[in-house]
Amino acid sequence: MKQIQVVTNDVLGTISRADIEAFDAAGKDGLAKLTNGTGAGNDFLGWVTLPQETSTALLDDINATAASLRENCDVVVAIGIGGSYLGAKAVIEALQSNFAALEPSKGCRVVFAGQNIGEDYMAELQAYLSDKKFGIIVISKSGTTTEPAIAFRILREQLEKQLGREEACKRIVAVTDAARGALRTLATTEGYKTYVIPDNVGGRFSVLTPVGLLPIAVAGYDIRALVEGAAVMAKATLDGSNTLALTYAQTRNALYKAGKKIEILVNYNPKLHFFAEWWKQLYGESEGKDHKGIFPAAVDFTTDLHSMGQWIQDGERTIFETVLSVESSENELRIPTDESNLDGLNYIAGKRIDEVNKMAELGTRIAHVDGGVPNMRIVLPEISETVLGQLIYFFEAACGISGYILGVNPFNQPGVEAYKKNMFALLEKPGYEEATAAIRAKLG
Amino acid sequence: MKQIQVVTNDVLGTISRADIEAFDAAGKDGLAKLTNGTGAGNDFLGWVTLPQETSTALLDDINATAASLRENCDVVVAIGIGGSYLGAKAVIEALQSNFAALEPSKGCRVVFAGQNIGEDYMAELQAYLSDKKFGIIVISKSGTTTEPAIAFRILREQLEKQLGREEACKRIVAVTDAARGALRTLATTEGYKTYVIPDNVGGRFSVLTPVGLLPIAVAGYDIRALVEGAAVMAKATLDGSNTLALTYAQTRNALYKAGKKIEILVNYNPKLHFFAEWWKQLYGESEGKDHKGIFPAAVDFTTDLHSMGQWIQDGERTIFETVLSVESSENELRIPTDESNLDGLNYIAGKRIDEVNKMAELGTRIAHVDGGVPNMRIVLPEISETVLGQLIYFFEAACGISGYILGVNPFNQPGVEAYKKNMFALLEKPGYEEATAAIRAKLG
Repeated sequence: MKQIQVVTNDVLGTISRADIEAFDAAGKDGLAKLTNGTGAGNDFLGWVTLPQETSTALLDDINATAASLRENCDVVVAIGIGGSYLGAKAVIEALQSNFAALEPSKGCRVVFAGQNIGEDYMAELQAYLSDKKFGIIVISKSGTTTEPAIAFRILREQLEKQLGREEACKRIVAVTDAARGALRTLATTEGYKTYVIPDNVGGRFSVLTPVGLLPIAVAGYDIRALVEGAAVMAKATLDGSNTLALTYAQTRNALYKAGKKIEILVNYNPKLHFFAEWWKQLYGESEGKDHKGIFPAAVDFTTDLHSMGQWIQDGERTIFETVLSVESSENELRIPTDESNLDGLNYIAGKRIDEVNKMAELGTRIAHVDGGVPNMRIVLPEISETVLGQLIYFFEAACGISGYILGVNPFNQPGVEAYKKNMFALLEKPGYEEATAAIRAKLG
Repeated sequence: MKQIQVVTNDVLGTISRADIEAFDAAGKDGLAKLTNGTGAGNDFLGWVTLPQETSTALLDDINATAASLRENCDVVVAIGIGGSYLGAKAVIEALQSNFAALEPSKGCRVVFAGQNIGEDYMAELQAYLSDKKFGIIVISKSGTTTEPAIAFRILREQLEKQLGREEACKRIVAVTDAARGALRTLATTEGYKTYVIPDNVGGRFSVLTPVGLLPIAVAGYDIRALVEGAAVMAKATLDGSNTLALTYAQTRNALYKAGKKIEILVNYNPKLHFFAEWWKQLYGESEGKDHKGIFPAAVDFTTDLHSMGQWIQDGERTIFETVLSVESSENELRIPTDESNLDGLNYIAGKRIDEVNKMAELGTRIAHVDGGVPNMRIVLPEISETVLGQLIYFFEAACGISGYILGVNPFNQPGVEAYKKNMFALLEKPGYEEATAAIRAKLG
């Protein structure tokens, strides 16, 4: 299996090897807490050994469900928010054509809903689905999270109107709690096919559970290879033979300590745009607490060299970059020769576009390092299921370690409740009567 | 015309009115520099009076060209990067359906190229275009910027192969320098229809020149209304009757001075996602220099409340948010009643989805302000061409003023050259021999 690598040489203008090694003990301790469950948030460590423990039977079952949905539907709507959205979105976008949305669908198109509260978004989705054969994957531990619950209410009604209740039930799959909650109850009543979100896997760590695997399989990608890639990385990380997660976790903490408050995850391939969105949740939600944590941001280069490039080169020196560096592209396309050469490009005629992209990447790295922006690189041999599987587990493990180094509980998200509580109070949700009175008094 | 508003009450937990007013003189001075051209970068002030000075004849001409492209093409590829990409992308995405890419195109689809150096991106675009009637809008002041030059070379060759050179020339429009440069020369030789990028309008301020207007018109939107909206804001800003730009510029500088280093531009409507990308270039490139400047970031809520929400609520207290708050949605869709009410949503049944979104917005604002995140709101009565035109000019004017308050030249971008110079050296571009030798020696 082609392996990912992590390269940290280009941080050494800002911090030293000793600065990174100063976190050796904390890093090892963090890794130990993940394996022996002695750290904060230890009831959410199911992801640590998940890839190795995922059974072939489960993967077969998911693939069979995906095949059935693909056979019966033009479009499958994956309803979910946060970790029930970003993982599947990241992997599908990484693997499909940049122009997949514009091309006729091969098999079955996956679209997303319940990840916002957009009236126009839902109305336009309804219009789009009105003449389509569609199915629904509804992903929610509780079944009561506002955004996906609204989307599911509306789309379930639409599907039942189109097909009748009995047929609609065959095109709905619920990914939810094993035993409790509104969605589990509904699924039992209606006879939906279901998959389980394990209790000990938090949302942002759930892409390799059915939460992510089912939509990815419906989109036509190889979830066995994805899980296999993750399992290889998991075993090697846990037995100590692969130290990439430790390296990344320690280096970013050393940079943070040195005043680098913003990390930008950089790609030179727009297919990785949503992988960065997944990463932002993973790190932002795990570390952004107790008034600390690196601010995670992301850019698509070279596109954003022409927007954020100036700031990165010359703005406040509080930033470092982590580059997802993809070694090979899938297609081969060379720059043609042009006799007139008015555009002056003949010096690169005959070269593959990717060679130019690589020189842009190298040139940018040198420029940014010279400008005071430390640079880490995560080298991906290609964009494929096995590589993405490795990358996912690598980032998850590094995130757990990094959060423990930082001294936070990497597995909770207490701050996410604040806006929800206010929203429920404002909407006069039953049970929030006191909060409603309080917020009204506050607003005057 | 419905007007945008700026609300700053919710910054007052962090800074006082006096802190904002402390920048009154600097703000007025900044505005004066824009109007009398006495500040740094004063050869790039063409945008200041551009909307009022845009002739009906030019708009008619652009609309006629757009109509011709729409008639003859299924797809028009807009080739450009930075300001030659983001403005058009931002306006088109704001106005079209969330599912426009998946729906049959009404008239003519606009796709973008030359905004990256992706080999897969270009190869997949070529494949997509292989059976389409397509045209090209190529946007480049010089005609030699690497990314768009590569894309244009490849797509022009493809178009000429499909149609023959003579027919291809009728489907190519160049937006470029009035007199000089590779693209101007080529356009003259080949007889392309052309539009001018004014010398005194920098890329990130160019959306209301043909750079943005032509692709927006091809996509089917009303560029007259867009320019009219901008002109109303321009006149009122310049005659002092509208002080929104001053308010925003002064408030963000006061927040920056108080240690708020990151500004997130927030939307609650995914259609505004790319408007934030345009804004990031505008502010990042204008202010990120001399080792200072607010770091511009962006989030789509409520989506990203489930990813970045934790960091914003509880991470380092160095962030403020500016919300694009849209008052009305285009569609009307209410939450249905469900007898079983397992999801517990009946308390909001019958409400429009947008009412829930508004309460999420208000609840989030209260939660973030309580958590130490100052909040500004830019209230948009709707998403329409006239409102977007106002918003564009508002942000441009505020950016110029804000840069002058900060003490930088808001109209240059010296840092953008650093990576290009290295890239040319690495690619052995003629004229870069010394740089090539130097960079090779450096790499060892």
